[in-house]
Amino acid sequence: MTYADRMQRVRSRMSDLDVDALLLSVGPDLPYLTGYEAMPLERLTMLVLPRDGDTRLVVPRLEAPRVDPKPDLFEVVTWEETDDPVAIVARFLSDSARRVGIGDHTWARFVLDLQARLPQCTFSRASAVVGPVRMVKDAEEIDALKRAARAVDAIAVEMRGVRFSGRTELDVHRELVDRMIGAGHERSNFAIVAAGPNAASPHHEPSPTRTITGGEIVLCDFGGTMDGYCSDITRMFHVGEPAKEIADVYSVLVAAQEAGVRAATAGTRCEEVDAASRRVIADAGFGAYFVHRVGHGIGTEAHEDPYMVAGNTLALVPGHAFSVEPGIYFPGRFGMRLEDIVVATEAGPTRLNLAPRDIAIVA
Amino acid sequence: MTYADRMQRVRSRMSDLDVDALLLSVGPDLPYLTGYEAMPLERLTMLVLPRDGDTRLVVPRLEAPRVDPKPDLFEVVTWEETDDPVAIVARFLSDSARRVGIGDHTWARFVLDLQARLPQCTFSRASAVVGPVRMVKDAEEIDALKRAARAVDAIAVEMRGVRFSGRTELDVHRELVDRMIGAGHERSNFAIVAAGPNAASPHHEPSPTRTITGGEIVLCDFGGTMDGYCSDITRMFHVGEPAKEIADVYSVLVAAQEAGVRAATAGTRCEEVDAASRRVIADAGFGAYFVHRVGHGIGTEAHEDPYMVAGNTLALVPGHAFSVEPGIYFPGRFGMRLEDIVVATEAGPTRLNLAPRDIAIVA
Repeated sequence: MTYADRMQRVRSRMSDLDVDALLLSVGPDLPYLTGYEAMPLERLTMLVLPRDGDTRLVVPRLEAPRVDPKPDLFEVVTWEETDDPVAIVARFLSDSARRVGIGDHTWARFVLDLQARLPQCTFSRASAVVGPVRMVKDAEEIDALKRAARAVDAIAVEMRGVRFSGRTELDVHRELVDRMIGAGHERSNFAIVAAGPNAASPHHEPSPTRTITGGEIVLCDFGGTMDGYCSDITRMFHVGEPAKEIADVYSVLVAAQEAGVRAATAGTRCEEVDAASRRVIADAGFGAYFVHRVGHGIGTEAHEDPYMVAGNTLALVPGHAFSVEPGIYFPGRFGMRLEDIVVATEAGPTRLNLAPRDIAIVA
Repeated sequence: MTYADRMQRVRSRMSDLDVDALLLSVGPDLPYLTGYEAMPLERLTMLVLPRDGDTRLVVPRLEAPRVDPKPDLFEVVTWEETDDPVAIVARFLSDSARRVGIGDHTWARFVLDLQARLPQCTFSRASAVVGPVRMVKDAEEIDALKRAARAVDAIAVEMRGVRFSGRTELDVHRELVDRMIGAGHERSNFAIVAAGPNAASPHHEPSPTRTITGGEIVLCDFGGTMDGYCSDITRMFHVGEPAKEIADVYSVLVAAQEAGVRAATAGTRCEEVDAASRRVIADAGFGAYFVHRVGHGIGTEAHEDPYMVAGNTLALVPGHAFSVEPGIYFPGRFGMRLEDIVVATEAGPTRLNLAPRDIAIVA
């Protein structure tokens, strides 16, 4: 889909939802629709996208040279250091605009300023309009996700030959970041490295002082953005052979992840994917140690719709791309997670990540 | 100042400004007051800080192990994947709360949800409360800024011996990022590398395909976060001797930057610092080519109050830390900027960056 196609679809949803205009700033909607990513700074960048009429990209003058102009899609309007960009944005909204969708990640300070400036408007999440469009990936987007997945797959394989013991978590984290950049990612979004008991903290921050030692399990969950689309993979490593308990729990995890993937057929509700993985872990008696949802959508954003979580009754359709990543965490002892990106297709769920799923024994 | 001292000062300002509670999420206020930085993800983290009464940090359960607990300062309240964190935050606001300050960077989706849940409340920027406290750095914070400044100073010096020609902008960008991490920064915040005409785009994005060639000017503007405080420096490089025109324009820039620094005495209005630099550039006939303010405050945030910009009548006080970074940009030809971090002290303005300020001649 071209940017013009995307914008057309979004405008059609604006009609359906009776939204008069979208105001998009930092976050994934703006690059999805225009190819331009706003800098996350105090100078406001905002696309004013009315349901009907001309679209304007309001940018600080000093950032205007970064914009790749697309005059068929939007006009670039620059503001000077002493201008009020909120007033400029408001001016480009038609007088009759009442219902405004604002980008989900827009900074609160700009939301408040816009609300004060536009008392006649009600504000809602732009994701209600753009989310369902972004959520269904076309063939080109699936290819981009696949290339990003294969890049981190290769890293996961290479890491099997790397020494872990004697290094800090932060040191391994940096290696993962370097490898992602080296493999063609334009940026790393995260690289969790969690050793031993730290692996029981699902979003552990890699430590500059915590050294990995013999006999420890190490969780590596890493991903970045490559050609605008995100990768995300979790694999487990173990310095030397794992104890039987760890191997036994891990076999439950593998079965749970497989069950989640298999459940992810078109027509299945997202909550059922979560339940399918959760059931396996609960049946093994570890239900209390699986403390998060099974997965999140992925695309230009690392976490986006659809979420594989209890209560989400959305039915999967071909083109939905998401993680399946159950985990089992024993606080103070050890933890583990296994994650692949999966795409729902007419032919069934397709894993984009193909790196081996066993615990890698490392030195 | 301890976290408790900071919180005390913030509460005192809440009284002065008649703000009943602060709600702080992603962004710099939360780590400034608690040492904990929220993950910028779809799961809400929010500190509920009432003017009087108990403070709560509402965090997703799976991120709770990341929190370094400070029970004297705040209670940690976790929420499960199927809970509504907005409802939990609202529950911790007292029934009498009417005026709420919300963190400036809080995502719009949470602002809208909180507004819908708390129709009796009016929302304003938390920075009105916290900003003036954060803006004035104590001796310990100045030391942290100085250490970060010295780290990038050393990199600026090392880069004088590095080859630029034949390498892409992105390659040099990566070297800067690697060097910042290697020098003790926990993260790079930006590393602009802009060659030749690209240097006329103040926020140029380093290109993976643009190769630096002989006879070109290269702008390097880089900074990161080290022990929680930010660095930020701009130095100019030139492959071989610069042409007389470039050297002449640069000497104007050096004088303009010096004038800005010298103007930054306690008691001077921020706009006067801007004007002092701008006057030198305008007098040389290049006023139209200096398209941005002279500087921004710096601390735990890369850009924060006070801003050195026309219209800012705030008077500098000892402890204000900010950049002085005039630039001259000729679109399509070349550009240049020179930046140091400066602290206002009783004894006058003090530069934290001490790396040589001439154009470095590189290979």
